[in-house]
Amino acid sequence: MAGSTYGNIFKISTWGESHGKALGVVIDGCPAGLPLCEEDIQLYLNRRKPGQNSLSTPRKEDDLVEIMSGVFEGKTTGTPISLIVRNTSQKSADYSEIASYYRPGHADYTFDEKYGFRDYRGGGRSSGRETIGRVAAGAIAAKILKEMGIEICAYTESIGPVQINYENFDKANILTTPTCMPDAAASADAELYLKNCREELDSCGGVIACTVTNVPAGIGEPVFDKLDAGLAKAMLSIGAVKAFEMGDGIASAFQKGSQNNDAFKMIDGKVSKITNHSGGTLGGISDGSPLIFRAFVKPTPSIFKEQQTVNKSGEDITVQIKGRHDPIIVPRAVVVVECMTALTILDLMMVNMSSKLDSLISFYKDNN
Amino acid sequence: MAGSTYGNIFKISTWGESHGKALGVVIDGCPAGLPLCEEDIQLYLNRRKPGQNSLSTPRKEDDLVEIMSGVFEGKTTGTPISLIVRNTSQKSADYSEIASYYRPGHADYTFDEKYGFRDYRGGGRSSGRETIGRVAAGAIAAKILKEMGIEICAYTESIGPVQINYENFDKANILTTPTCMPDAAASADAELYLKNCREELDSCGGVIACTVTNVPAGIGEPVFDKLDAGLAKAMLSIGAVKAFEMGDGIASAFQKGSQNNDAFKMIDGKVSKITNHSGGTLGGISDGSPLIFRAFVKPTPSIFKEQQTVNKSGEDITVQIKGRHDPIIVPRAVVVVECMTALTILDLMMVNMSSKLDSLISFYKDNN
Amino acid sequence: MAGSTYGNIFKISTWGESHGKALGVVIDGCPAGLPLCEEDIQLYLNRRKPGQNSLSTPRKEDDLVEIMSGVFEGKTTGTPISLIVRNTSQKSADYSEIASYYRPGHADYTFDEKYGFRDYRGGGRSSGRETIGRVAAGAIAAKILKEMGIEICAYTESIGPVQINYENFDKANILTTPTCMPDAAASADAELYLKNCREELDSCGGVIACTVTNVPAGIGEPVFDKLDAGLAKAMLSIGAVKAFEMGDGIASAFQKGSQNNDAFKMIDGKVSKITNHSGGTLGGISDGSPLIFRAFVKPTPSIFKEQQTVNKSGEDITVQIKGRHDPIIVPRAVVVVECMTALTILDLMMVNMSSKLDSLISFYKDNN
Amino acid sequence: MAGSTYGNIFKISTWGESHGKALGVVIDGCPAGLPLCEEDIQLYLNRRKPGQNSLSTPRKEDDLVEIMSGVFEGKTTGTPISLIVRNTSQKSADYSEIASYYRPGHADYTFDEKYGFRDYRGGGRSSGRETIGRVAAGAIAAKILKEMGIEICAYTESIGPVQINYENFDKANILTTPTCMPDAAASADAELYLKNCREELDSCGGVIACTVTNVPAGIGEPVFDKLDAGLAKAMLSIGAVKAFEMGDGIASAFQKGSQNNDAFKMIDGKVSKITNHSGGTLGGISDGSPLIFRAFVKPTPSIFKEQQTVNKSGEDITVQIKGRHDPIIVPRAVVVVECMTALTILDLMMVNMSSKLDSLISFYKDNN
Repeated sequence: MAGSTYGNIFKISTWGESHGKALGVVIDGCPAGLPLCEEDIQLYLNRRKPGQNSLSTPRKEDDLVEIMSGVFEGKTTGTPISLIVRNTSQKSADYSEIASYYRPGHADYTFDEKYGFRDYRGGGRSSGRETIGRVAAGAIAAKILKEMGIEICAYTESIGPVQINYENFDKANILTTPTCMPDAAASADAELYLKNCREELDSCGGVIACTVTNVPAGIGEPVFDKLDAGLAKAMLSIGAVKAFEMGDGIASAFQKGSQNNDAFKMIDGKVSKITNHSGGTLGGISDGSPLIFRAFVKPTPSIFKEQQTVNKSGEDITVQIKGRHDPIIVPRAVVVVECMTALTILDLMMVNMSSKLDSLISFYKDNN
Repeated sequence: MAGSTYGNIFKISTWGESHGKALGVVIDGCPAGLPLCEEDIQLYLNRRKPGQNSLSTPRKEDDLVEIMSGVFEGKTTGTPISLIVRNTSQKSADYSEIASYYRPGHADYTFDEKYGFRDYRGGGRSSGRETIGRVAAGAIAAKILKEMGIEICAYTESIGPVQINYENFDKANILTTPTCMPDAAASADAELYLKNCREELDSCGGVIACTVTNVPAGIGEPVFDKLDAGLAKAMLSIGAVKAFEMGDGIASAFQKGSQNNDAFKMIDGKVSKITNHSGGTLGGISDGSPLIFRAFVKPTPSIFKEQQTVNKSGEDITVQIKGRHDPIIVPRAVVVVECMTALTILDLMMVNMSSKLDSLISFYKDNN
Repeated sequence: MAGSTYGNIFKISTWGESHGKALGVVIDGCPAGLPLCEEDIQLYLNRRKPGQNSLSTPRKEDDLVEIMSGVFEGKTTGTPISLIVRNTSQKSADYSEIASYYRPGHADYTFDEKYGFRDYRGGGRSSGRETIGRVAAGAIAAKILKEMGIEICAYTESIGPVQINYENFDKANILTTPTCMPDAAASADAELYLKNCREELDSCGGVIACTVTNVPAGIGEPVFDKLDAGLAKAMLSIGAVKAFEMGDGIASAFQKGSQNNDAFKMIDGKVSKITNHSGGTLGGISDGSPLIFRAFVKPTPSIFKEQQTVNKSGEDITVQIKGRHDPIIVPRAVVVVECMTALTILDLMMVNMSSKLDSLISFYKDNN
Repeated sequence: MAGSTYGNIFKISTWGESHGKALGVVIDGCPAGLPLCEEDIQLYLNRRKPGQNSLSTPRKEDDLVEIMSGVFEGKTTGTPISLIVRNTSQKSADYSEIASYYRPGHADYTFDEKYGFRDYRGGGRSSGRETIGRVAAGAIAAKILKEMGIEICAYTESIGPVQINYENFDKANILTTPTCMPDAAASADAELYLKNCREELDSCGGVIACTVTNVPAGIGEPVFDKLDAGLAKAMLSIGAVKAFEMGDGIASAFQKGSQNNDAFKMIDGKVSKITNHSGGTLGGISDGSPLIFRAFVKPTPSIFKEQQTVNKSGEDITVQIKGRHDPIIVPRAVVVVECMTALTILDLMMVNMSSKLDSLISFYKDNN
C-alpha cells in the first residue's frame, strides 16, 4: 500500500533509491513460456539511461539489468521475475547540502511530512531513477503485447514552445533524435531552445504523445476501471506528469457533440470509426481503433537559478541547486510512458479474460 | 474486477442500470461512530438529480435513497452500509430502437464486444445514472472529511467557449445557478449558449474545476499511488471526462522551471508555498496547500442531429437519437467530481495512517 | 477492507444485519451470458433457511431473494449483480437484554472493542444471517462451475460423537435428512443426540466434509495463494468454523512419508494418483483428483444453561440466553461451505487464465 | 496474482527458486523510522538455515541477507525494502534426473499442468527455500510487533507419535533443541524416532503450535477477513501444512457448547476470559487473550524408499529420490510459522486503524 505496487494480475513491485545499492522490480504474474533474456530488457533501459547526449544529466550509469529469478532455460516460468540494476555512479556528496532544506518543486518537504525524515541523497525514492523498475517490468509487458501484435509508440510532441509538425513524422527519428521527436527539424529547434534554457540556468516542460495500435475491442472495465482511467493513473504516477488527455480530451471540452462524436462505418467488413476524437475508447472500453493519449510533463524542478525556500530549521533562505540535472525530463520519460502503457494494457487484457461465460468455458475445455 | 469496486480501505461497490429496478452502492470500510441519516446523502443526490431545470433531461426522478444496513441508532457501525435508490421513471420503450444499432460516442459497441450483448435500455450500466452509487457513497466520505475540517468545492469553470471570471467568484452561486458556475454573469451567458446548442440539435462540453482545502501534508503514496494519480483515475473514471490536470498541469508543459516551481516561505511559523502551480502536491504527496485540479468533460454524445453509424447487421445507416438527454453533462457532473474526490482523499488518508512507526505505536498505546 | 469483500476477479461484497431491513450481496465480475433467475439462487438459500425442522431455530423467514441488477432478458450482463433478501421476522425485543452484557462465545465484546459500540439486535453483523449474502453469491458461482462440469458436494460427517458410516453414503440423503448427513442411520442417531443436548439446555459441534470433482489440474497459485490456503481462509471465515484440513491433513502430521505420499500411475492414458491423501492438490495447486477437505464447527455458543459473564458496567454476572437458537450450527452451514468453496474455486480459475503465454495469445486470437 | 504477493498494507512480494541466483522479497508498506540492520533479519534466517544439525539437509548455505533499499542511516524510510539472499550451494546436477518424472507428494506434476513446464532444479519455486523471502520479511514484521509488546512463540508440539509434555515446557529449549521442541526429553525421543525414520528411508510429519501474547482486542475484520481466516490462509500457504486449528478447533467440533464457551470475568479491572478454548478470538476478532493455533505438517515427500510414479513420456516407473532432504520439515518450519503470523497480525493491525471515526479524527489532529 506504500504505493510501489502496480497491477491486478500482471503485478509489479518496484524498489530502490537514487543513491542506494541498486534499484529493481519483482513481476508477479508474468505468463509462463515467454522467451526472455537480459537484452530484451536492456534495450528499454538504454532508452532512459542518463549521459547519452547533451540533453541528459552527465551522470554516467550503465544501468545493466540482471535477471535474478523466474526464467529457466531462456523462458519465463510463470513465477516471480526479479530484476536488479546496480547503482554505480552515486556521488552522494553532491547532495549532502540538500539534506538541510526543501528544494522547490521536489518531494523533499512532503517526504519529511509523511515519513518524519527522508533519504535525501539524490531525491532518494522520489528520484527519476525510480522509473528503472517500471521500465524493466514494462519491457516484458511490451514484449508480450508485441507477440499479440500490439505496438506502443510514444514520442515527444513538444518541448517548451517547439511542437512537431505531423507532416514530418518519421517513427525512426524517435529513437535517434536526442529529443525523441519524430520530426528531425523540430528536434533541432528544440535542442536550440534547450541550450538557451540551460544558459539561463533554467529548464522547461513538454508533451509526450502515445499511440497504441491493434488493441482488441473490449479492453477496460466499466465504471472505475475504465481504460482511460487506468492510463490516466499510469501517466500521473510518473513523477513530473501533471496532466493527461485521452484523444481530443482537452479540446473536446470546448467543442460541440457533432464535432466530437466519431461516426461508425463498415470498413473492410468491420465496424470502424471514421474519426478518432475519443482516442480509441468508448465508455472507457477499447473500441478497436488506435489508442491516442498525451502526458503533460512539467519542467525539471532542479534549476540552477537562485530560488527562495525554507530550511529544516524553519528559516527563509535562498539556494542554488547543484548536482547533475537534465534541463528537460521529457526525452527520457518517453520510454517510461511506453512502459506504463504496456503494463496497464496487458493487465487489463488479463482481467478481461473472464468477461464472457462462453470464453471462460471454452478456455477450460480447450486447455484440458 | 469487473470495475465497479473502488478504494483500498474505504471500499465501495456500485451497481445498477439506467432502467433496472434500482441503483445502489455498498460501502465496506466506513469507520464506526459517524452520525448518518438519509438526509445527509439525499442532499448530494439532489444535486445530480435530473429534471431540475432547463439544462437537464426532463426525466423526473426523485432518486430517494434508502439506508439498508450499517447504521444503528443513527450512527455507522463499522460494517457495510448498503444504499439503494429505486428507479421510478423508466421509459424503456424510448430506447427499444437503439437496441439495433451503435450510437456514436456511446459505449453500445464496446459493451457488445466485451460482453457479447448489452442491456440497451438507456445505456444500461454505461448510463450517467451509474453515478448515483458514487454520489451516495461520496456523500458519506465528504461528511467524514468535513469532520476533519477538509472541504471540497467543485464548480463549472467553462461551458463551450464561456468561461467564468474569477473576479466574480461567489461560492454560493455554485448551488444556485443551473450551470453550477460560481459567476452568475458567466452562467447567464452559458445558458444562452446552451439554448443555441439545443436549437441546433447539438450539445457541448465544458470544464469542472475542483479545490480541496485543509488536506494535511503527507497524503498520497510515492510511485504508483500518488495523490495526483489517484485523482486522475477518479476523474477519468467519470463517464464523459476525457482529460485531467493537476494545478497548472497543461500550461506547465509549456513553461520554464523558474515559472513553474513554487518557492517555499515561512508564513505564520509554517512551511508554506508562495504560489501553488503544482496544485497542492509535491512528488504526488499533499504539501498542505489547497489541492486544485480540473476535469475536462466531452459534449453529451446523445445529439438530435442526424448521425452516421452502423447497425448490428453490419449495415451503414443514419440515425437521429431520441429520448431525454441533457445538452451538457457538466452541471450534473459537478457533484460527481466532488464525490469521487472525497472517496479518493479519504481512502488515501486511511492508507497513510501507518506511514510512521511512531504513529502506529502510539495509536495502539492510546487506543488500549 | 472492513472485511465484507471477497475474491479477486469474481468479487463479492456482502452486507446486512440480523435485524436490519435486509441482507444482500453485490457480485462484481460475474461473466456475461449466464442464464440466471431468482429460482437458481433461491434453491441454495432455502437450504440455509431457518425453521425447516426441529434442529433449526423456530425463527421463520422466507428469505426470498430479489435480483436488483446485472441480469437482462434472463442472462447476466457482466455488470454487477445486486441481490437482496428482506428481513421479515425480526423480534428485536428478544435481544434488548443482551445489549447490556457480553454473551460467552459471541462477538459482542470484540465488536465493542473494535468499533466502540455494536448493533446488538440478534448479533447484528456477526449473526449467522450474514451468510445469506455468501450463499446468494455462491449459488451463482456454483452454477457457473456446474456449466464446466465441476460439482461441489458438502455434507455433515459428524455431530458431536455421532459419525457417518461411509458404507451407508447416499448423496440424496444430504438434502433430505435434517442433519444433512448422507447416512440416514447416523442421521437418526444424531437427531437423538441433539434432542438430549437441547434437553440439557446445551448445544454441540460437528464436522462438515466437502468434495469437489472435475476441477482441472493447475488451479491455485504458488506460495501465498495456494488452493489449500484459499479454501482454509474460506472455511475459517465462516462464523463457527475453528479448524480446517485438506485431505488427510491432521492425520498426515502423525504419519510417515511412505504412507502419506500418493503414487502416480497412468490410468486411461491420464496421469493419475492411486490414492488421494493430499486431498486433490500438490504444492497448493489442483492435481486433477477430487478436492477433499473438512471444516470443524464449534457448538452453537447460544446455550440456555446459566453462564458466567460480565456486563458493560464491568460487573461479574450470570446470564441465561433467551431467543431462538439452533442446538447445532452444522446442518445449516453445509450449504455455506459449498458456496464458499464455489466462490474460491471459480475465482482461482479466473485468476489462472493467464498462467501460460500460449493460452493468453490464443485467447485473444480466438476471440477476435 | 501469481500468488507471491501477500498483505494489504504491509505488503510483500517474494521471489526466487531453489537453484536460481538468489531469493528475496520486497516489502512495500513498512512504516518509516524502524531501526533495522541485516543482523535483525539474519537471526530469523539462521533459524531456518539448512545444515545446522543431523535433522536437516546436509546442504550448507550461509543464507546471508543483504538489504538493498528502504533503509537510510539505520532506519526504514517508509519506501520499499528489498532483501536478497544469494544461493551458494546449488548442486543442480543432483536434480537433472527428476526433470523427466513426477515425484510423488511434490508439485512437479501440477507446475507442469499449470505452466506447461517447470524449473525442475530442486523443486524450483515450490522448494522450501521459497520461505526465505517470507522469513526475511516476517523478521521485520516481528520486530515492529515486539516494539508494541506483542510476542510470537511457535514451537514443535509433536513429531510423528512423540508429543511434548507441557509440564516440561521451557521456552529456551525451542531455540536449542534440534527439534524446536520446548520439552528436552520429548525432543530426545523425537530424535530417536527420526533416526529410525531415516534408517527406514522414510520421513514423518508433525505439529507446530503457536501462541501470540499482547495482541490488543479488536484486530481482525468481520465476515471474510477474520483473524482466524487470515491465520488459516497464512498457515496453509506454507508448503507442507495441510491442516489448521484455532484454539481447541478440532476438539470443539466434538464438544458441547457448555464445554467450549469461555466465560467472561473481571480480572484486575479488565474484561477477561477464564478459559481460552476459542484461541484468542471471538467472531474472528482478537479478544485480548493470547492467540493459540496449530499447523499440521505432512511428512517430507522426498523419501529414499522406492516409489511408484509416472514419467513425462506417460510411462509407469519406479523411482528412488536422491539429493539432500530433511527427514522432517517441522523444525525448520517453526520460524516460518512465526513469520507468517507476524505478517498477518501486523497487516490486520494496520487495516484496523480506521475502524473508529474518533480514532481517525484524533490521529490526524494529533499528527498535524
